[in-house]
Amino acid sequence: MNEIRVPVKKLTAFCVGCFEKLGVPAAHARLTADNLIFANVRGVDSHGVIRLKIYVERLRAGGFKPKVRPKLVSDKPSSALFDARHGIGQVAAMAAMKLAITKARKTGAAVVSVRNSNHFGASAFYAMRAVERGMIGLACTNAGPSMAPTGGCAGRLGNNAIAIAVPTGEFPPLVLDMATGAVAWGKIFVAQQKKQKIPTTWALDKHGQPTDDPNAAAHQGLIQPFGGYKGYGLSLFIDVLTGVLTGSGFSTYVNSLYQQIDKPSGIAHTCAAVRIDGFIPLAAFRRRMDEIIGLMRACPKAAGTERIFVPGEIEFEMERRRRAEGIPLNEELAGELKALGADLKVKFPG
Amino acid sequence: MNEIRVPVKKLTAFCVGCFEKLGVPAAHARLTADNLIFANVRGVDSHGVIRLKIYVERLRAGGFKPKVRPKLVSDKPSSALFDARHGIGQVAAMAAMKLAITKARKTGAAVVSVRNSNHFGASAFYAMRAVERGMIGLACTNAGPSMAPTGGCAGRLGNNAIAIAVPTGEFPPLVLDMATGAVAWGKIFVAQQKKQKIPTTWALDKHGQPTDDPNAAAHQGLIQPFGGYKGYGLSLFIDVLTGVLTGSGFSTYVNSLYQQIDKPSGIAHTCAAVRIDGFIPLAAFRRRMDEIIGLMRACPKAAGTERIFVPGEIEFEMERRRRAEGIPLNEELAGELKALGADLKVKFPG
Repeated sequence: MNEIRVPVKKLTAFCVGCFEKLGVPAAHARLTADNLIFANVRGVDSHGVIRLKIYVERLRAGGFKPKVRPKLVSDKPSSALFDARHGIGQVAAMAAMKLAITKARKTGAAVVSVRNSNHFGASAFYAMRAVERGMIGLACTNAGPSMAPTGGCAGRLGNNAIAIAVPTGEFPPLVLDMATGAVAWGKIFVAQQKKQKIPTTWALDKHGQPTDDPNAAAHQGLIQPFGGYKGYGLSLFIDVLTGVLTGSGFSTYVNSLYQQIDKPSGIAHTCAAVRIDGFIPLAAFRRRMDEIIGLMRACPKAAGTERIFVPGEIEFEMERRRRAEGIPLNEELAGELKALGADLKVKFPG
Repeated sequence: MNEIRVPVKKLTAFCVGCFEKLGVPAAHARLTADNLIFANVRGVDSHGVIRLKIYVERLRAGGFKPKVRPKLVSDKPSSALFDARHGIGQVAAMAAMKLAITKARKTGAAVVSVRNSNHFGASAFYAMRAVERGMIGLACTNAGPSMAPTGGCAGRLGNNAIAIAVPTGEFPPLVLDMATGAVAWGKIFVAQQKKQKIPTTWALDKHGQPTDDPNAAAHQGLIQPFGGYKGYGLSLFIDVLTGVLTGSGFSTYVNSLYQQIDKPSGIAHTCAAVRIDGFIPLAAFRRRMDEIIGLMRACPKAAGTERIFVPGEIEFEMERRRRAEGIPLNEELAGELKALGADLKVKFPG
């Protein structure tokens, strides 16, 4: 398969151009493009420019409102709620994260949520904003239903995601960014193509039974929560802290990104920031973070393990490489982006 | 095996009596006893009076200081830090939870942590205090090392635990209380006794390889994090938010409850509270919680599933039964408590 590599700046500018053509204000277009490219540079291609097409389709169909600004509907010293008014998820989520940081600077800690929002891309993008300000950041989101509660066989919870980012000293920031599903659908589709069995912890068949057959999973099956009932509990709690708490959609009231593209998703997000020097001085915290990371990395290794990683390390190294070498796009994706560009009259840089 | 049942009030009074004999102030003795009995009534016997003996031993040996009061060492509008001064974990953790609730009432959200603490029992005990006040509560703790980072074969992280509790309307509160390990050691010991294999996701042998042999696990092996590297990431993050953030012990600097009983554990906790009406009115939230719980419970069931539970439901039903019928104690545990009572001159009610 032919692969091309596109420099980060050029691919970002391409996304910005597409969004602007659809009426998205320049600053919002840039923010949304930065979020997609952030995922690509970190190697999380599932949340990168592969989403540009559906974003464009939703902006056109009305599922994402291009021009609205999030509205602050509740405001306390350490908490707040935005209504995204069905605009772009990235725009509302970043407004929430910034406000959480501002509030935490004054009070020590803050939680800011968003209702009536849309897909917000990679969660780590928001949590890491707090790290830039020397704080611990958290961002989570709900999503359209794709998992069942333990024992169930129908979609009641999204592959809800959470990211937590922590400042460090010498090491890259500690960044945990995870969905509550055992696996992404993409991996099941790959197993289908390759005619390989899948682990029985990944998916359920349409009867709610664990299956090692990727075809049975893909045919009206469901993703399993990671780690069994604990993952179910975490996913449910994220839905509570986002959808239920904010007055937004939750469980079956959230629409999936790829369905009913003219309808708002009803997605909700929650962001939080904690000021470290409310506990110990930031410099001491940074040294202690380096020490705990060092303890993990230097842990005696099991046979077959070359290296022990901490969360965010693989993505950090990928980012260095891709910022230097460009973002790889396979032929199919490059073709899709090129066609999008032709349609919107934005030149594709590939 | 002979089993006795002891009424909740009598077993609580027995624990209070033991603690008071060791110099623990009456209010602290009551709080600590309540925490142990809370676990028993909810069916979480691993955190109940089975711990009384080691608590007594640590109070005598100096690992728990019986008389100290937690000291507030940092205070902001929405965050604070206590130094537990190596006292009883329950005392310091409840002080932190109460302060988090007081602060959240004023500001909307708050995070309060504790350093230089000890084992604090069941995490849900603290998180549920927020629910009584109509708030969302969170409590987490680190613990002595018993798990390796993914790919490692030495203890670097505790079976760190987190509880989250959420108010509801008609249904019992939603209470997620979970350790980050795949399993408790107790279950591995039971498999040893019964000469049964264990799932390969539970433990590692001493070389860091997954094993289905409970003997290999028990012989210098380790517990696996639940859900693979995601559980590792969560466990590490809990250690960061407790031990690293507070200036307390973390990773290998935390002492296990049953080792070096004359030494402080260096354990740390973090509690948080979020005021719901900073987002939507509490009454509306309660209705929405009932609705999402109803959606989970009414989800179509997989073959073999009799009922779908939400987190905390099993424990709530157990609590109703045990408050009526008393707490069951097996012969061995009853004997242990009776001997403790004889030693401390506190009459055992069994």
